[in-house]
Amino acid sequence: MLIMRQTFDETTDPSFGPRHVPLIRKAMAEQGLDALVIPHEDEHQNEYLPAANDRLAWATGFTGSAGAAVIFRDKAAVFVDGRYTLQVRDQVDEKLFEIRDLVDGGVPAYLEAVAAPGQAIGYDPRLHSPDALGHLRAAATKAGAELKPVAVNPLDAAWGAQRPPQPAAPVVPHPLEYAGEESASKRLRIGKAVAARGADVAVLTSPASIAWLFNIRGGDVIRSPLPLAQAILEKDGAARLFLDPRKVTPDLPAWLGNQVRLETPDDLDAALADLAGRKVLVDPAQSPAWFFEALEKAGAVVGRAEDPCILPRACKNPTEIEGARRAHARDGAALTRFLHWLAVEGETSPPDELEVVARLEAFREQTGALKDLSFDTIAGAGPNGAIVHYHPSTRLNRRTEKGSLLLLDSGAQYLDGTTDVTRTVAIGTPSPEMAQRFTLVLKGNLALARVRFPAGATGSALDVLARSALWAHGLDFDHGTGHGVGSYLGVHEGPHRISKAPNSVALRPGMIVSNEPGYYKEGAYGIRIENLQVVTEAAAIPGGERPMLGFETLTLAPIDRRLIDLDLLTAEERAQLDAYHARVLDIVGPQVPADVRAWMNEACAPL
Amino acid sequence: MLIMRQTFDETTDPSFGPRHVPLIRKAMAEQGLDALVIPHEDEHQNEYLPAANDRLAWATGFTGSAGAAVIFRDKAAVFVDGRYTLQVRDQVDEKLFEIRDLVDGGVPAYLEAVAAPGQAIGYDPRLHSPDALGHLRAAATKAGAELKPVAVNPLDAAWGAQRPPQPAAPVVPHPLEYAGEESASKRLRIGKAVAARGADVAVLTSPASIAWLFNIRGGDVIRSPLPLAQAILEKDGAARLFLDPRKVTPDLPAWLGNQVRLETPDDLDAALADLAGRKVLVDPAQSPAWFFEALEKAGAVVGRAEDPCILPRACKNPTEIEGARRAHARDGAALTRFLHWLAVEGETSPPDELEVVARLEAFREQTGALKDLSFDTIAGAGPNGAIVHYHPSTRLNRRTEKGSLLLLDSGAQYLDGTTDVTRTVAIGTPSPEMAQRFTLVLKGNLALARVRFPAGATGSALDVLARSALWAHGLDFDHGTGHGVGSYLGVHEGPHRISKAPNSVALRPGMIVSNEPGYYKEGAYGIRIENLQVVTEAAAIPGGERPMLGFETLTLAPIDRRLIDLDLLTAEERAQLDAYHARVLDIVGPQVPADVRAWMNEACAPL
Repeated sequence: MLIMRQTFDETTDPSFGPRHVPLIRKAMAEQGLDALVIPHEDEHQNEYLPAANDRLAWATGFTGSAGAAVIFRDKAAVFVDGRYTLQVRDQVDEKLFEIRDLVDGGVPAYLEAVAAPGQAIGYDPRLHSPDALGHLRAAATKAGAELKPVAVNPLDAAWGAQRPPQPAAPVVPHPLEYAGEESASKRLRIGKAVAARGADVAVLTSPASIAWLFNIRGGDVIRSPLPLAQAILEKDGAARLFLDPRKVTPDLPAWLGNQVRLETPDDLDAALADLAGRKVLVDPAQSPAWFFEALEKAGAVVGRAEDPCILPRACKNPTEIEGARRAHARDGAALTRFLHWLAVEGETSPPDELEVVARLEAFREQTGALKDLSFDTIAGAGPNGAIVHYHPSTRLNRRTEKGSLLLLDSGAQYLDGTTDVTRTVAIGTPSPEMAQRFTLVLKGNLALARVRFPAGATGSALDVLARSALWAHGLDFDHGTGHGVGSYLGVHEGPHRISKAPNSVALRPGMIVSNEPGYYKEGAYGIRIENLQVVTEAAAIPGGERPMLGFETLTLAPIDRRLIDLDLLTAEERAQLDAYHARVLDIVGPQVPADVRAWMNEACAPL
Repeated sequence: MLIMRQTFDETTDPSFGPRHVPLIRKAMAEQGLDALVIPHEDEHQNEYLPAANDRLAWATGFTGSAGAAVIFRDKAAVFVDGRYTLQVRDQVDEKLFEIRDLVDGGVPAYLEAVAAPGQAIGYDPRLHSPDALGHLRAAATKAGAELKPVAVNPLDAAWGAQRPPQPAAPVVPHPLEYAGEESASKRLRIGKAVAARGADVAVLTSPASIAWLFNIRGGDVIRSPLPLAQAILEKDGAARLFLDPRKVTPDLPAWLGNQVRLETPDDLDAALADLAGRKVLVDPAQSPAWFFEALEKAGAVVGRAEDPCILPRACKNPTEIEGARRAHARDGAALTRFLHWLAVEGETSPPDELEVVARLEAFREQTGALKDLSFDTIAGAGPNGAIVHYHPSTRLNRRTEKGSLLLLDSGAQYLDGTTDVTRTVAIGTPSPEMAQRFTLVLKGNLALARVRFPAGATGSALDVLARSALWAHGLDFDHGTGHGVGSYLGVHEGPHRISKAPNSVALRPGMIVSNEPGYYKEGAYGIRIENLQVVTEAAAIPGGERPMLGFETLTLAPIDRRLIDLDLLTAEERAQLDAYHARVLDIVGPQVPADVRAWMNEACAPL
């Protein structure tokens, strides 16, 4: 087997809690703390964490992408959301940890219920946003306990020499042919937005915002090319960028130019102190509480507002959109080669999940352009496909079987764009029920792909389009319909999303968003169809009176025709899918070997 | 012509401002005020006002259902929303009043911009909710001015003897055969909800909540059977009801029972003072600021929470739903008789809008059950149909013409239910464009009628279903898609609604909501199709896994087949409309004379 980017070994086990919690309790006692709150988030509020910052996993064994723990001297609890209720029982020692819901009540309700009057509950102000902290503080106050910031995190003290080193991956220029706008132009634009909000400077702590603003990329966080850093942006576009000197590559200073001062993380305290008397914009949802405390102590006038890079970053420019098209054409060819391999291989000797992941990664590797996966591939065979956040591992690995489905959700990081695609494939002959469910999911995907909508419409408003065919049959799925995607950045990116949850962010031209309805039958199979699509100004409609927006589908790979129940599709839907398949054949076909193209002629034929 | 409930004379004219503002300014000066804020809302935060409380109309001439004015000594402004931008220029003297947007900035932005430091800006604390007042206060503070409560409203002082008397319509029992639940049971239920929110009592100031809770109806407000009153509800279900003694009918005290103490409005101050030291729940969106001030002065512990009657009132019980079905069958027969009359009359001598309104009212009157209209009928002929909040008047009256459309939005109050229905009818032969637009609106109406959805879905989530057919053609409409409707109460009732605006209230079984997409071509014609529908638990779906909710359409009246472009309908939509028409024929047919029934056979025939 190839040397792979994705690994299948589990990085934690249920012994983590019993081995590490006593060490943490000892360090707590030394600081006079009765409890410690451990969020999943790190200093940069990242979704994916460097191993050195995955405190929750080290303390508990739980490796989900969201969660928290609270450790008291005599009890402890882990908090996870609905996606992780199965996984957490697998990874965490339930004798040590009570398992509670992260969303319904969450940590605050727990603190309110179990903290005793007078107790000191420690928290690390570098890990919590003020928004999150407010809820914790209110709960502690109600219980008569005190929330106490720590100077040194007792968990870090306990972790000690076992803790992996902080990452220091090189930070490199992200060339204009991919970024599409000079950093100087972005900084001027964002500086003006800072001024428009009545501030002099903005403090930026989000690695994705910093990568976008300075046109740089790093490698400190797995699966996304993020540089861990902080920055201070003046309203005239000048900036100070705080970066570990080990990460600075030779070309970087010249690339940043003389309006950007490169400094070290050790300079940050003094730089914040320099902001005394100035109006400073910080995002209370993104930046840790520590920044607010440091700025207020320094005598800065703190204005709380959304990170000013978030919305501009989400609206891709023409160069980024052109890059996304190229990335998706390339990625679609790799995925199509895999689907062809599976069609041939699957008929003779069905592969297991690990082979599926390895083979798909190999096809992506062969493009010569792969920088990383955009997340660990989800290959769910049969019942594993029904576990929404399943990741294959050596222990859980399952072979595909005739008459079952394989759910395959994967993506790649290329310099010109980030991809994320899900296909559900029949192994052998699917049951009529599988085809009915698949077709209902497909109807939702098609409805959300073809919709036209006026400016101002949000993802919450469009969500129902992806669900109503399922609803009509008494079915639904329990995850969001779509998330924003970065441009050679995070595969999950705000501020927009498509979901049942209310969201007030209007969809704007250039935003990339996934369209991924699904259906999951526990213990049997899972279905999801996911394409990325970019918001466009829709072509003028004859007789139309108002400008409308629409979507261009970026993802290009065949959708399994064997899973479609033609009786359930309208003529409009058939034509829409036929047109999509024709486009796939047209763009991907010339990129693949003749045997694959021959297979595509069948796979992409009109219904 | 019959003696009608609806009148066509305008009640104000642009001379109101020049005649009344000087009187108001004099009274302001006597109280040392530099300005006075005049909201549309009255002491009860009603949508429709008794004439005695329509202060905004008296001061300015503007009679819309939402708005405000601010009168300074040397300037004045009227604030209206997008619905009323045409009407306000018709009704208000623009030499005296600047016209400004109520929503974009509104009164607060105006105060912030024009108030001078040190100025005293008067407001009547009986007319503003704390929520609204907070914005005014922040704006005045920014301008360095002071917001000053008045003991006597200078406008009321200026109005003096010209002011109509306060209404004192009799308050009568609303029998159990219509209400479906004893007041004692409701009071116990709501009392428990008050206790669950940690309070001892609730202060209720919404006439609709009071009418519902005590199973009483009044007539103080035109078009809705509301008694103006206040109440204090104990958590054990006992209550004090403050009602003008002139309104108390002989049977009322016995109907209310001995758990309800009848008192006069003069007793209210002392009753609030009685609440010293108790935990009192008041709704800051519903109750005037005066109540909060009085309670806080009395030493009560004020808890701010939604009026606890609002959600239970919205979820109609089986008796109310059965009543709504009866009311709609009766009302549908009256409307169908009108539509038949129009089809006959319209072909020979097309009527004008006033005749349309009178004739429709007469058919409703002939049911023998009509208590009131539920709002003044909107009959918009040709271009008048494109004015969303048009009301016909002697001055604006327009005759229907061949080749045009008539938009007819009307409703009635019956003891067993409140109706609200819009039909758009072709006079002569409609143009292909009219038919195309009508059919797109119809597709939206049908989609929203047939949807199945899981518990938790809000009206905001479903809104797109009513619009996407229009959007696909570059069209849209600029009003909400649906509003809640009371049971022999207000025709506009919260907390649910269907609209683009985010709304977090999930639709629940028993909620009645309108489904009224439209299309408006300025200067040409307007289209709207409106049915009321009630949320139901959908019948079990074969193969379905989750319980779903759905809608039962209550409104029963033919939809004009001559306006349908069959090529634009799917087979499913045709079947849906055919089934609806069959139901109309089945239920309404037996109630109408033979000639009408014969016409219905055509009007309701399958497409």
